[in-house]
Amino acid sequence: MKKFINDPSTALQESLAGFAAAHADIVTLAPSGKFVRRKELKQGKVALISGGGSGHEPLHAGFVGHGMLDAACPGEVFTSPTPDQMVEAVQGVDTGAGCLFIVKNYEGDVMNFDMAAEMASEMAGARVLQVVTNDDMAVEDSTFTTGRRGVAGTLVVEKIVGAAAEAGMDLETLQELGKRVNANTRSFGVALTSCTVPAAGKPTFDIGEDEMEFGVGIHGEPGRRRGKLISADEIAEEICEGIVRELGAARSKPVLLLVNGFGATPLMELYLMHNSARKVLEKQGVNIARSLTGSFVTSLDMAGCSVTVTALEEDMLTLWDAQVHTAALRMGM
Amino acid sequence: MKKFINDPSTALQESLAGFAAAHADIVTLAPSGKFVRRKELKQGKVALISGGGSGHEPLHAGFVGHGMLDAACPGEVFTSPTPDQMVEAVQGVDTGAGCLFIVKNYEGDVMNFDMAAEMASEMAGARVLQVVTNDDMAVEDSTFTTGRRGVAGTLVVEKIVGAAAEAGMDLETLQELGKRVNANTRSFGVALTSCTVPAAGKPTFDIGEDEMEFGVGIHGEPGRRRGKLISADEIAEEICEGIVRELGAARSKPVLLLVNGFGATPLMELYLMHNSARKVLEKQGVNIARSLTGSFVTSLDMAGCSVTVTALEEDMLTLWDAQVHTAALRMGM
Repeated sequence: MKKFINDPSTALQESLAGFAAAHADIVTLAPSGKFVRRKELKQGKVALISGGGSGHEPLHAGFVGHGMLDAACPGEVFTSPTPDQMVEAVQGVDTGAGCLFIVKNYEGDVMNFDMAAEMASEMAGARVLQVVTNDDMAVEDSTFTTGRRGVAGTLVVEKIVGAAAEAGMDLETLQELGKRVNANTRSFGVALTSCTVPAAGKPTFDIGEDEMEFGVGIHGEPGRRRGKLISADEIAEEICEGIVRELGAARSKPVLLLVNGFGATPLMELYLMHNSARKVLEKQGVNIARSLTGSFVTSLDMAGCSVTVTALEEDMLTLWDAQVHTAALRMGM
Repeated sequence: MKKFINDPSTALQESLAGFAAAHADIVTLAPSGKFVRRKELKQGKVALISGGGSGHEPLHAGFVGHGMLDAACPGEVFTSPTPDQMVEAVQGVDTGAGCLFIVKNYEGDVMNFDMAAEMASEMAGARVLQVVTNDDMAVEDSTFTTGRRGVAGTLVVEKIVGAAAEAGMDLETLQELGKRVNANTRSFGVALTSCTVPAAGKPTFDIGEDEMEFGVGIHGEPGRRRGKLISADEIAEEICEGIVRELGAARSKPVLLLVNGFGATPLMELYLMHNSARKVLEKQGVNIARSLTGSFVTSLDMAGCSVTVTALEEDMLTLWDAQVHTAALRMGM
């Protein structure tokens, strides 16, 4: 295992300390280390809280700040955060208008956020609603999931719902919006190499020098099939044609195209994939209204990428364009 | 070789097309493909032009936009752009106040930018001055370099000089400022793996499973020594103590700490390295006034990182904080 670490058991804590120090103008790490919060809260605004296993950086802490999340709860690497983390986050950022949990669809996450919602309501009288994301169209049911997995589309939900919360929408409206964005979003990922969990010290899966995993999950879970490495255009064709089919009638709306790196794939390749994906979508008559390219929802040091398409209804397009000021995403100035 | 490409001979062109399409609100790719320019020029402002071999994305095209560069000339992977590219860029973005070339210190780049400056002056009557960056303290003279190499510190020069150009400073003042920022900047990089140039199809150098290269260049050039992989804290100590020694009296100024990934190192490790570097610098009494962490000056798919420290004089600190709106760097809102 070749990583910049000192000790696998303290890697998360040290990385969070570095993150908080580097972005002290935007975020604060709770003294307990249980959550990262916005430095300045906005009274009367619904609080958006997300979280999940670490190893997907910048998700979620990188999206804490004006126009996006109020708090993020980082679990250990690829491990759900515990309910007490979310409860502490609620107590830390709820200003009375309620909290919306944005949860990726993994059994551990769903269970722990559910429990946290109940505890926060009983202990602190907080009003908590949830949106569960499941944008990964690769497989139904998976290693850690019943149904579809929540992957890079979660960032789109966090951005759009975050802008709406900033604009003062109420808890129920935000939940409805989040569900609608999720329903309009599809993702599909491919891996060229495995990731390596620091505590395990060896690759999560083996893959041949000429192979790729189609439909890989963001923890290295198996996808649809293992196949020979094909060209960027062929990969884009398989992914984008599938996404467009899945979007159905929504394909006629303007879309956001997100090409997301998994951690070890450089920007040069991601922009090339963006170009390949764009060609396929345009050939299908899809109107690419907005673009985002970069490594936003990662799988540690996995080489690979995913393509996400969100069909943007009119309100979503406006909210996508709204100002955001977080460590990993800044728009509008 | 495992990459998202179609054909090594068209990879650069396809990646640039994807980049230009994804950021059409900020940049335009010249019809000739020879340079990327700011979508909207500011009349009477000195034009900042940089460039170099591709494979270091987002450098330089990712830094074209308000508050930073006016144009970037991308050469083939790890190959200097040709003088006609820079001349065409001058003709494309010079609004009469002259052009400043920002050039990383590699023999090919220096020679070609020199030739371009002469040609632009003779052919188009343009006034062109240059700043050559050489922030890499690892080695004197190297595979492609006489003297020190220009690496991640180039981003700092581009940001600060870009802000000054935006504020209306004249050509001579900008050149002086650029030289001063470069003189106040030191970088040092380490590699855990080699990069692979698409056209070569195999790693640039071999390195053992337990080894790292200390002082590696951003094209995989040899550094100071090959050694066993050590901990993040030990790496940070060796790098930062060296940088502080080199900075001499400037170490008493507030500094910018830039932890830069080489392409295949995930953010979780970069923030951990940031934390390690911060601890060493603070122990040495250095005041870290500003931070930047991410993959900004890369070496294709190399796993590794560099640490850059710039001692910020008062004008530089103000200019660092100025608004910038590029594909890869956005600040101020």
